[in-house]
Amino acid sequence: MTETRRPIVDLTEAEARLSLPLKWGVPEGVIPAWVAEMDYAVDPVVLEAVQRMLADGITGYPLERDPALGESYAAWSSRHFGWAPQPEAVHEVVDVTAGVRVALDVFSGPGGVVFPTPGYNAQHGLAGVTGRAERLLEVPASAGRAEIDLDRLDALFAAGAQTLLLTQPHNPWGRVFTRAELEGIRDVVLRHGARVVSDEIHAPLVLPGAEHVSYLSIEGTHDHAVAVVAASKAFNIAGLKCAQLLVPSAADRARLADQPMSRNDSWSPLGVAAARAAYDHGDGWLASLVERLDQQRTLLGDLLAAHLPDVRMRPLEATYLAWLDASAHGHDDAAAVALERGGVMLSAGHSYAPGSTGQVRLNIATSPDRLTEIVERLAKAWA
Amino acid sequence: MTETRRPIVDLTEAEARLSLPLKWGVPEGVIPAWVAEMDYAVDPVVLEAVQRMLADGITGYPLERDPALGESYAAWSSRHFGWAPQPEAVHEVVDVTAGVRVALDVFSGPGGVVFPTPGYNAQHGLAGVTGRAERLLEVPASAGRAEIDLDRLDALFAAGAQTLLLTQPHNPWGRVFTRAELEGIRDVVLRHGARVVSDEIHAPLVLPGAEHVSYLSIEGTHDHAVAVVAASKAFNIAGLKCAQLLVPSAADRARLADQPMSRNDSWSPLGVAAARAAYDHGDGWLASLVERLDQQRTLLGDLLAAHLPDVRMRPLEATYLAWLDASAHGHDDAAAVALERGGVMLSAGHSYAPGSTGQVRLNIATSPDRLTEIVERLAKAWA
Repeated sequence: MTETRRPIVDLTEAEARLSLPLKWGVPEGVIPAWVAEMDYAVDPVVLEAVQRMLADGITGYPLERDPALGESYAAWSSRHFGWAPQPEAVHEVVDVTAGVRVALDVFSGPGGVVFPTPGYNAQHGLAGVTGRAERLLEVPASAGRAEIDLDRLDALFAAGAQTLLLTQPHNPWGRVFTRAELEGIRDVVLRHGARVVSDEIHAPLVLPGAEHVSYLSIEGTHDHAVAVVAASKAFNIAGLKCAQLLVPSAADRARLADQPMSRNDSWSPLGVAAARAAYDHGDGWLASLVERLDQQRTLLGDLLAAHLPDVRMRPLEATYLAWLDASAHGHDDAAAVALERGGVMLSAGHSYAPGSTGQVRLNIATSPDRLTEIVERLAKAWA
Repeated sequence: MTETRRPIVDLTEAEARLSLPLKWGVPEGVIPAWVAEMDYAVDPVVLEAVQRMLADGITGYPLERDPALGESYAAWSSRHFGWAPQPEAVHEVVDVTAGVRVALDVFSGPGGVVFPTPGYNAQHGLAGVTGRAERLLEVPASAGRAEIDLDRLDALFAAGAQTLLLTQPHNPWGRVFTRAELEGIRDVVLRHGARVVSDEIHAPLVLPGAEHVSYLSIEGTHDHAVAVVAASKAFNIAGLKCAQLLVPSAADRARLADQPMSRNDSWSPLGVAAARAAYDHGDGWLASLVERLDQQRTLLGDLLAAHLPDVRMRPLEATYLAWLDASAHGHDDAAAVALERGGVMLSAGHSYAPGSTGQVRLNIATSPDRLTEIVERLAKAWA
């Protein structure tokens, strides 16, 4: 692995509009702080790995499975989390949400899927896509700490749900679950013979003060759980299309191997190359990124204290996505007001928590100057 | 559009092993003629478009919909087929099989899916993935011409099937359906209120003597049919991940727009750029490709006549995939014998037609020399 530190390079507005067409597809004068992409140049080591693929003319089918990817992920996971799956547990999927879908389809019973909310907007409705009921397990905006209520989880399983879709670190809560919390979840799951799909895409983005514990590293989980991981969120490469489904149980791997090809064959060889480069050689860039995000987190806290003291934010333990409760300002749709009056595009709370009005998700993965301007604009817009 | 002719560049074995890791992931001495990829360098105009994306740092999310892609496809379809969908009918999907899955899930009733066989191996089992029964409509190896038996289609619909998965041009039959045939299919479909999903990925590869007619260009199909198209098969870019779902009915488009994001959000912005480059600027390369494939088709006919006169091939009207009936040679698994005794990797017939023994699919998209050696080896292996 290459440990050489590489700096985080901020994109100018012109560069960001070119490189991030979705996030920056906003009118002139609007600052986008919505979708989970970062206003930073991609790690050159990762970019070069993909460019090398194209220089070699590799635009066709990937290998059916690339054992090197499993080795790369396992080594990376071991270095970063002190735990690793067996390399043969690592399966390519096109992206994390598609991986969750595969897992539900192949491993879960037909009962409902428990989805803690506020929850990742792109996964609202996913249970229904697989033909299962979506059972929301809500953390109220007023809760002091965002936690999974084990009694409520128990009741949902007792009422027929058969799977928990766990997002950890959590988006948009910004929480990193502790080992004790995960053990508590496991105990409830085991009591009901339920399954867990653990979306761990944000694991590389745990900030100083917290520690990522994979659900699969908890004793007694391998027979009922899979995890979905990716380099794409931490390395800004969601468009290259390869995430990884970790299947620790040999019996589950056999079930997966029995599926028709069309269940899961859409990942890109460029995404495999990018993921391998990130896992093998990305540590030096990722360390700089986490340092920057830690600074942005501190800056956001200072800015809120100065300009928006009535906006509440629970401690941001991971991710670059701050979940803000602006309901004290009394707007029906705080995100709409931010855009109309402030020219700041946030993610609206109701995409994560149906019915939410005052909550918003704010993306802090930008420059200190831009984050400062965002909060100053929000203060004026919400005043 | 650029009409400048660009030549087809044959890959050496070393180049092919580098550029086509799946197809050429065979032991030394084996010639691969199986999976549908071509031993030709990618059109430089398409490759450069993707390289430009990476140079611009575009590795993240694509636009939710790129209107330019619809315009590009519509203009291309109009030039090549004398018919075009409205640009707003064109929807991004990650690949053709995923697009078929979306179409079945969103538009089809729960009844069975009629799948003419021999049929594309990756789509065997796809009906089951969507929770529907797969109803095979078999063309026997002995049939003089590979056609869809309308009486049998009628009977399958009468027995509860609700969708026809049409592959046209057909892989592996090599057939291009005529307008009259498609009208006959439409009439049966209309009689039963059934749906059609038309996989037209091979449409750019119709060879001289035949003409592609999109099912959607047939009168009275828009309320019951969608098509799935792509530049990926003709331009050797399956790994770049963008196909297109054509939805001609406004009511169907509204149903698609109502789906949760996770139903269909996995395509790559690199795939969009590649598809646009192919549609806007690929005509000059595609003309050379079709010319080469036409020559390879002629060469194959000559080689079979000279070396394997008892192997039967119906006329190859489109695609670079020849469907051969070698059952006269009496081997239980003609593809296995070809590999073991001849060092030629074919696609086994039983992947396309369950129970088939003597049939194989042979990929002719290679150099004349390599095709010659393939057939000479097959003649020795099957003797």
